[in-house]
Amino acid sequence: MEGKEEDVRLGANRFSERQPIGTAAQGAGDDKDYKEPPPAPLFEPGELKSWSFYRAGIAEFVATFLFLYITVLTVMGVSKSPSKCATVGIQGIAWSFGGMIFALVYCTAGISGGHINPAVTFGLFLARKLSLTRAIFYIIMQCLGAICGAGVVKGFQQGLYMGNGGGANVVAKGYTKGDGLGAEIVGTFILVYTVFSATDAKRNARDSHVPILAPLPIGFAVFLVHLATIPITGTGINPARSLGAAIIYNRDHAWNDHWIFWVGPFVGAALAAIYHQVIIRAIPFKSRS
Amino acid sequence: MEGKEEDVRLGANRFSERQPIGTAAQGAGDDKDYKEPPPAPLFEPGELKSWSFYRAGIAEFVATFLFLYITVLTVMGVSKSPSKCATVGIQGIAWSFGGMIFALVYCTAGISGGHINPAVTFGLFLARKLSLTRAIFYIIMQCLGAICGAGVVKGFQQGLYMGNGGGANVVAKGYTKGDGLGAEIVGTFILVYTVFSATDAKRNARDSHVPILAPLPIGFAVFLVHLATIPITGTGINPARSLGAAIIYNRDHAWNDHWIFWVGPFVGAALAAIYHQVIIRAIPFKSRS
Amino acid sequence: MEGKEEDVRLGANRFSERQPIGTAAQGAGDDKDYKEPPPAPLFEPGELKSWSFYRAGIAEFVATFLFLYITVLTVMGVSKSPSKCATVGIQGIAWSFGGMIFALVYCTAGISGGHINPAVTFGLFLARKLSLTRAIFYIIMQCLGAICGAGVVKGFQQGLYMGNGGGANVVAKGYTKGDGLGAEIVGTFILVYTVFSATDAKRNARDSHVPILAPLPIGFAVFLVHLATIPITGTGINPARSLGAAIIYNRDHAWNDHWIFWVGPFVGAALAAIYHQVIIRAIPFKSRS
Amino acid sequence: MEGKEEDVRLGANRFSERQPIGTAAQGAGDDKDYKEPPPAPLFEPGELKSWSFYRAGIAEFVATFLFLYITVLTVMGVSKSPSKCATVGIQGIAWSFGGMIFALVYCTAGISGGHINPAVTFGLFLARKLSLTRAIFYIIMQCLGAICGAGVVKGFQQGLYMGNGGGANVVAKGYTKGDGLGAEIVGTFILVYTVFSATDAKRNARDSHVPILAPLPIGFAVFLVHLATIPITGTGINPARSLGAAIIYNRDHAWNDHWIFWVGPFVGAALAAIYHQVIIRAIPFKSRS
Repeated sequence: MEGKEEDVRLGANRFSERQPIGTAAQGAGDDKDYKEPPPAPLFEPGELKSWSFYRAGIAEFVATFLFLYITVLTVMGVSKSPSKCATVGIQGIAWSFGGMIFALVYCTAGISGGHINPAVTFGLFLARKLSLTRAIFYIIMQCLGAICGAGVVKGFQQGLYMGNGGGANVVAKGYTKGDGLGAEIVGTFILVYTVFSATDAKRNARDSHVPILAPLPIGFAVFLVHLATIPITGTGINPARSLGAAIIYNRDHAWNDHWIFWVGPFVGAALAAIYHQVIIRAIPFKSRS
Repeated sequence: MEGKEEDVRLGANRFSERQPIGTAAQGAGDDKDYKEPPPAPLFEPGELKSWSFYRAGIAEFVATFLFLYITVLTVMGVSKSPSKCATVGIQGIAWSFGGMIFALVYCTAGISGGHINPAVTFGLFLARKLSLTRAIFYIIMQCLGAICGAGVVKGFQQGLYMGNGGGANVVAKGYTKGDGLGAEIVGTFILVYTVFSATDAKRNARDSHVPILAPLPIGFAVFLVHLATIPITGTGINPARSLGAAIIYNRDHAWNDHWIFWVGPFVGAALAAIYHQVIIRAIPFKSRS
Repeated sequence: MEGKEEDVRLGANRFSERQPIGTAAQGAGDDKDYKEPPPAPLFEPGELKSWSFYRAGIAEFVATFLFLYITVLTVMGVSKSPSKCATVGIQGIAWSFGGMIFALVYCTAGISGGHINPAVTFGLFLARKLSLTRAIFYIIMQCLGAICGAGVVKGFQQGLYMGNGGGANVVAKGYTKGDGLGAEIVGTFILVYTVFSATDAKRNARDSHVPILAPLPIGFAVFLVHLATIPITGTGINPARSLGAAIIYNRDHAWNDHWIFWVGPFVGAALAAIYHQVIIRAIPFKSRS
Repeated sequence: MEGKEEDVRLGANRFSERQPIGTAAQGAGDDKDYKEPPPAPLFEPGELKSWSFYRAGIAEFVATFLFLYITVLTVMGVSKSPSKCATVGIQGIAWSFGGMIFALVYCTAGISGGHINPAVTFGLFLARKLSLTRAIFYIIMQCLGAICGAGVVKGFQQGLYMGNGGGANVVAKGYTKGDGLGAEIVGTFILVYTVFSATDAKRNARDSHVPILAPLPIGFAVFLVHLATIPITGTGINPARSLGAAIIYNRDHAWNDHWIFWVGPFVGAALAAIYHQVIIRAIPFKSRS
């Protein structure tokens, strides 16, 4: 336990060089030359005087605004058409959600980290990657951006918007609320675990260029969860997106299920954070040498 | 204000190391080792004697020619078929526009910067990334290329082309001109903001390999805007593309809305340039240390 | 034969610099500064005491669980709808399988190598990239993960699941078992050959950044094989995926063809391993200088 | 003309640092530290004794075999179904062609350059990137691979294959042979120009990582040309692919148009080689300093 390289009980890393072929993004096992950064403090008063803090909030607002605008507009285009074949289709909706996350994470990662999703912010907060102050600020800005984005779409064609569900998340007929909650939990787990995996390598392997590609698997994770769960809940996995559409749509049946789209994503994000930190990174078991 | 690292009033960059996880493409905060390049002059007489200047114009011409050729041909293939299922579908059209931008930006970025779009050229001109001379030359070559590209498609099957709208942009029934203008403004904002974000990093972080991937989010931005706004305007966000199709199609209803596809993209590009330069880069507030 | 650079009879590598243009991922011919790593031993007792060994198994379990969960859920969403146009379509299913492999390989490559498929594990074992102990452990964990993943989907809507084939692989009407077996062999060959090609470069060219992208062609290979062979067998090319769906679905007609989805992938993987090691890498002919 | 940096009459490169923003893949203008490699000789007798020469041929054979196998099988799956919606659709066919080129170029680029297409080999031969011996050998191996690939698909279901056009290229009704020839010329131009652009940077900028991504725009170029021209010719832009399907299908109407799928691609490839070497690289005008 006192040895610097013996950081996990079972003798991890002794066999890292025997690790089977792969792209070795995580570099699990080269912990020797990697120090876990200290956890972010809960409150960091100085942050509030920094321009980069507010700029990050603005970037989250704008990104979530654009995210809701494009995706809800795409949903409207598909929903209004009697023949889905004359539209981009349900697959097009899934591309819209996943592709926007890819492009927006790529654009805003350097400014705010590119969360664009309260569940991602919550998961990273649990892993102590950002302060509580910043987490709350981000979540508020994301929700405001989402409300504005859905509002602009409603502004284009109010009747169309209200007649086609407004892009709000509800549990589809034939599924129980438990199914919906489960789908949201597992879906958000996939997203947040991908975020952890894709961005972790950045710090671990300093020369690695993995982060360049990180927005791509993150965007794909969102795309794939939509492919699978649009028939169940319309796919939330992003409480800001669900809230924005619910507020602008504002009908009872959307509000009735709304709690699912906060509880599910937050539980899924927490599980992903625990899985990554405890199982994959084994942080609790590491010696503090 | 005199300190080199205190470049924004609120004390930016003091907390850069606390920036939440992400792919850190922009490297916002490492401004210490980064000098803003001087703005391009409005007129640069020497440019006109340089072969690389004319080569860049030719590359813009060829790229915009190929862009219109492939995309309008794809639109024709979808439009002419009574059953959209027997075609690549509306989603295929969106891929065509986005994919061509990806491939063409990848191919011509090193020659001309890979604009292929007067709105992109305009946005970069506002940010003083290129001279006025070059901007005007590019826009002319882009428009000529677009006209030729649409012309070749018409040449393949004139009746088909004229009977299916010729790929020209018009505001769809059920939407006002204001809706169309708004859709063009926000759509071009997304494109030009992605261009700024994806290419900015290149100069900021000299060792970064972000620019390699830059054509991919740029292409995706085009794809996503098409997914969302094909039902509203057919999606312009590129005045050369709109002009080329309008000239070759040449019917009144296409010309009536044509101003939208110049005003919208130019306003959107200007907003994106302002957002990136003022909010994200905070250039006006920086000390000239 | 004694010369270090003359490693193949015919005088390979003498003309490497004349090799036609390309992306030169493999760097075939620069074998001078590359030493083949020693083959993994069949049994490595120390491995069993290493936390990274068990962590890798857990990662394979979780990844295969998520793989089956998302893909079978997507299949259910498409199957239950009378009009395929109102779903993500067969193409959406192919994206689901290929995209999940892309995202999961990206996430788990650094932990376990990111196999998520007994055929891949088998192929890499034949090439002696991992020990027999590890190979068997991985295959067991993959199968358990797959069973759980399919089980959760059945839990959502049991009637729907049993009424729509449960995502199980069977040879479609109009095709013989021989066709099905052939399709599985060639399909898995494509996948495993892509795995070898994409990851080989990692060790060969130490400075190469090819492995970063490796999950992308691997995911595409899975996507493409699904595009082609969903009409024939539903596409297995992954015995864990076939077993998981078969056990949860548990109907005779699924079990009757089940051997095809083990024999086919294992034969295909073996052929890919032989092709890569013997033809491409020419390992048997290399001098042991 | 004698100055090292004055390599083009008009004074090229004097303004390279003013080049508008972009991803700067080509690095046009940094010719100072870049020497054009000598053109490949027409005949290189030593090549014939090299194992890497034959291995490259085998790799081209296998890659073209797999290319035809997957793509023609996908075409059959779509063609046989009365409702295109219950298949991967025409868009799925386009993905199949483009995606296979992406994956196969990625896998074989390091072995043979990853041509998989006689038109690409011809274009690169014109640019003197490989010897005539090698070009002919590649083209023969590509054609043999294509014949075998289409043959295996026919073997699966002979009636289905012959009843659905066998994946052979013909000019569709409503289009003249001139249209078909034009579509093939421009389509191949796009592909071969992308190949030149994406791979050129490799040598120009030694530290650039552009080639890593090169297979992606090349695959996209193939995908996009298919989106646009499947309704016209079924899209050839690859004489081996057209020949393989024509020989296995072997009906008069396929043979009648067959010349178009050799003349078109070879003309397109020649134009792309000229455009790239003369306009973009300005090789004829460069001083031999």
